Amino acid sequence: MDFRELDRLNRRDLLRGTAMLGAGAAFMQPLPLLAQAGSMSDVRKAVEAGKDASIKRLRDWIALPSIAAENRNMTEGAAYMAELAKDAGFTNVEIVPTDGHPGVFGTIDVGAKRTLGIYFMYDVKQYDPAEWSSPPLEGKMVDRPGFGQSIMGRGAVNQKGPEATFLAALHAIRAAGRKLPVNIVLVCEGEEEIGSPHFRQIATKPNILAALKKCEGIFIPMPGQDSSGNVAVNLGSKGIIELELVASGEKWGRGPKKDVHSSLKAMVDSPAWRLVQALQTLVTKDGNTPAIEGWFENVRPLTEREKTLIREAAKADNDEAQMKQALGVTHWIDNLSYDDALIRLAQEPTVNIEGLVAGYTGPGGKTVLPGRAVAKLDLRLVPNQTRAEAEKKLRAHLDKHGFTDVEVNVSGGYDPTEVDEKSSLIRSELATYKKLGVNASLNARMAGSWPGATFTAPPVSIPAGHFGIGHGSGAHAPDEYYLIDSTNPKVAGLVDATMGYAEFLYTLAAIK
Amino acid sequence: MDFRELDRLNRRDLLRGTAMLGAGAAFMQPLPLLAQAGSMSDVRKAVEAGKDASIKRLRDWIALPSIAAENRNMTEGAAYMAELAKDAGFTNVEIVPTDGHPGVFGTIDVGAKRTLGIYFMYDVKQYDPAEWSSPPLEGKMVDRPGFGQSIMGRGAVNQKGPEATFLAALHAIRAAGRKLPVNIVLVCEGEEEIGSPHFRQIATKPNILAALKKCEGIFIPMPGQDSSGNVAVNLGSKGIIELELVASGEKWGRGPKKDVHSSLKAMVDSPAWRLVQALQTLVTKDGNTPAIEGWFENVRPLTEREKTLIREAAKADNDEAQMKQALGVTHWIDNLSYDDALIRLAQEPTVNIEGLVAGYTGPGGKTVLPGRAVAKLDLRLVPNQTRAEAEKKLRAHLDKHGFTDVEVNVSGGYDPTEVDEKSSLIRSELATYKKLGVNASLNARMAGSWPGATFTAPPVSIPAGHFGIGHGSGAHAPDEYYLIDSTNPKVAGLVDATMGYAEFLYTLAAIK
Repeated sequence: MDFRELDRLNRRDLLRGTAMLGAGAAFMQPLPLLAQAGSMSDVRKAVEAGKDASIKRLRDWIALPSIAAENRNMTEGAAYMAELAKDAGFTNVEIVPTDGHPGVFGTIDVGAKRTLGIYFMYDVKQYDPAEWSSPPLEGKMVDRPGFGQSIMGRGAVNQKGPEATFLAALHAIRAAGRKLPVNIVLVCEGEEEIGSPHFRQIATKPNILAALKKCEGIFIPMPGQDSSGNVAVNLGSKGIIELELVASGEKWGRGPKKDVHSSLKAMVDSPAWRLVQALQTLVTKDGNTPAIEGWFENVRPLTEREKTLIREAAKADNDEAQMKQALGVTHWIDNLSYDDALIRLAQEPTVNIEGLVAGYTGPGGKTVLPGRAVAKLDLRLVPNQTRAEAEKKLRAHLDKHGFTDVEVNVSGGYDPTEVDEKSSLIRSELATYKKLGVNASLNARMAGSWPGATFTAPPVSIPAGHFGIGHGSGAHAPDEYYLIDSTNPKVAGLVDATMGYAEFLYTLAAIK
Repeated sequence: MDFRELDRLNRRDLLRGTAMLGAGAAFMQPLPLLAQAGSMSDVRKAVEAGKDASIKRLRDWIALPSIAAENRNMTEGAAYMAELAKDAGFTNVEIVPTDGHPGVFGTIDVGAKRTLGIYFMYDVKQYDPAEWSSPPLEGKMVDRPGFGQSIMGRGAVNQKGPEATFLAALHAIRAAGRKLPVNIVLVCEGEEEIGSPHFRQIATKPNILAALKKCEGIFIPMPGQDSSGNVAVNLGSKGIIELELVASGEKWGRGPKKDVHSSLKAMVDSPAWRLVQALQTLVTKDGNTPAIEGWFENVRPLTEREKTLIREAAKADNDEAQMKQALGVTHWIDNLSYDDALIRLAQEPTVNIEGLVAGYTGPGGKTVLPGRAVAKLDLRLVPNQTRAEAEKKLRAHLDKHGFTDVEVNVSGGYDPTEVDEKSSLIRSELATYKKLGVNASLNARMAGSWPGATFTAPPVSIPAGHFGIGHGSGAHAPDEYYLIDSTNPKVAGLVDATMGYAEFLYTLAAIK
């Protein structure tokens, strides 16, 4: 799964294109927090004094890429994460073994009334240095037009940059001689980029579960500002199952077990046609609505409040034309209006074909009858669907249609999540953004997916979300970057983003 | 297209596996032509005397690979082919320009009563030296267990080896001081491996057309013996259209023009689903019978005679178990008996998926909604279907089902062919095999395809087929080889295969 999916604002920047950023900036007002420091001036001074150390901390971390898919630096990455936590003041720091790669857990207990959970990932996505304009492990400073000087490197925004920024806030509060206003519980995993297959083992380890259950809520640091400085507060996200649907002569007991000459089609069954026939039962003729038996049984339609939020956001954005152009799309499904398309985006579960692979895939043709055909699918789930329910229903549907031999190989996924906008977590986010002068809109439901259900579902059952100002982009892509010195008066650089996390802790401590 | 498709006997060897060859050979009786030379003893002596020169001729030819797909050595290959023809006694040798790569034409007019056409290809398939156990351009002698010493190289069997063997027969007849018993018309192309897109331009050039129309028939030299020494005489072959079916946001005007994030599926149409829905209209639910409107309109069912030939061949072969094992198949379509499956193989037109390619095709998954999806299809045609008719009906079918945007990109193909078993060409083949003591069966219709329709259809309208003894294998694959010194008493090496072509010329000249 990819956190990129969460990054609605970066997506919006992508859609708008960077061409307009220069012109737009001239009309913008600076962030209030750029102009004044108020009661947090001592912390701000400490943040500024610690800036070079913060940058070095991020660069050193980028230089040690942990990649679960490649089993690369996993032990080293967990140990490094544990040291980062200790340096920031966490105690009882523990490397948590799992059936996969280890996680890290730590707490800061200052005897405060409230406790905040923080979710970190220490792993990063694979990368190919040849595709980068700057070496991906060097974290060099580069200028990003419309934003400013940024650190470029793998993990810069996804997720080491914002995580290091959060740690910088803890360092600064301590350096300012203050006690933290809230207790903090830190849970980290090293398998986010492969779909968090063992994260539940970490979160439900008895001592960690007990600590999490004390939290008001938990968030992952995320630099959520687009080029206009706006952020969105997500009130939930779709779930996802990623899987391969496989038709093969091997399992079918018909057709060939390997590729054979295509002239044999007249006497030999075809697993590729079997896949096509199985696939087409999964959706309506237009390919837009799941047709798997019972799929909508537990689907909760959006509430009027949620629909209103979506309509308001669409109105505020008014970016349909740019979005269509950026996506290369001329019509939404069923020729819906933009509002209705965005409502559909949030509301509907989907069955998407990510990829098709069978037989000969090179240039031109080759006269083979493939022994195996694969459709890579992702199925987006909405509340109150669950992964377990969906997997069971997909299997039952295929079986009922006679495709008992068609394999469903699930590689990963997340349940959908929801978080109450009345929770102290979300109210604290909104209050902090307001204090920072950042325009925040409520996003009823992300169409993307993240591991938040580990927190929102039993047994943890706490609100979970994302918080942060600042900016970065290029998650999973070459030239990933994280903004350090902003030249855009609406967008926070490293110092202001650090202050954002500090402000959040005080806001949560005090929220009614 | 690939001549490999024609090589039913090599396929049969492949199916049987080479393990049984050693054991089988002990019980075999030697070919009559190995034991006696008769009235052709002077020619045989000349063939034996010319053997080293024949091998050198083949090796030198292999060292100059002409590959149309790579535009490699095409001018040089045509010039070399012309020299080979001249050396073998052809006059009026002409390099024939086309809109693609050139062909070669030549004749030997000895004032005989009858004229024979010979079809050559001077091009070869692409190759990757890394996959070969012997350098593919060196034509080294290697031992092939169960067969004997063979020349290994690209083009060895497909088609330079058998073509050079035919030329060796012409050299030997001349060296023996004889006049050819028939006139010969040679037509060569250099684009067989890319589907003969311009071959019709060669065959219908006025002087070439006039020469071809004088021929009793035309054949391509092909070493047709399996490990038991048996050959098949093909009475026709299916046609083929190779094409890509493409669904894209670009053409559809719906969905994205490029790959976008898969979460957008809820508001954006999917070209991959569009492809699946279009595909599934092309065949019956079981994937085995074309469902394209009007597809069977001109299909001529097999005659009782043709069915009888197939049943007899199946009975003689009795290789169902080995064939199933080699193909990795446990059931034929509809659980047909072997006889009925082979009848279906010859009789039915097919729509085969060669390959599927869309979106992300690497390991694991990637959350994209592809902007384009491609199915590589081959459609096998039977008499009296034609390529032109089939292309028109496929387009009309897709349009009628609303898939006007789904592209049909045809890359090549051949019409089906038929040749009368009463033609002098086929009767001469059978008589020659009989004289050589080679067991020949009539093959009612090849499920594979070849450019023979250029000859059998108007305006040329002459019988066309394949002839030859000897052995080779590995067309289009690494370690392609052609047998030179046979250790299998049932299978002809170079000298006997050369004599086979010489005998054919005399048989055709004398046939009633």
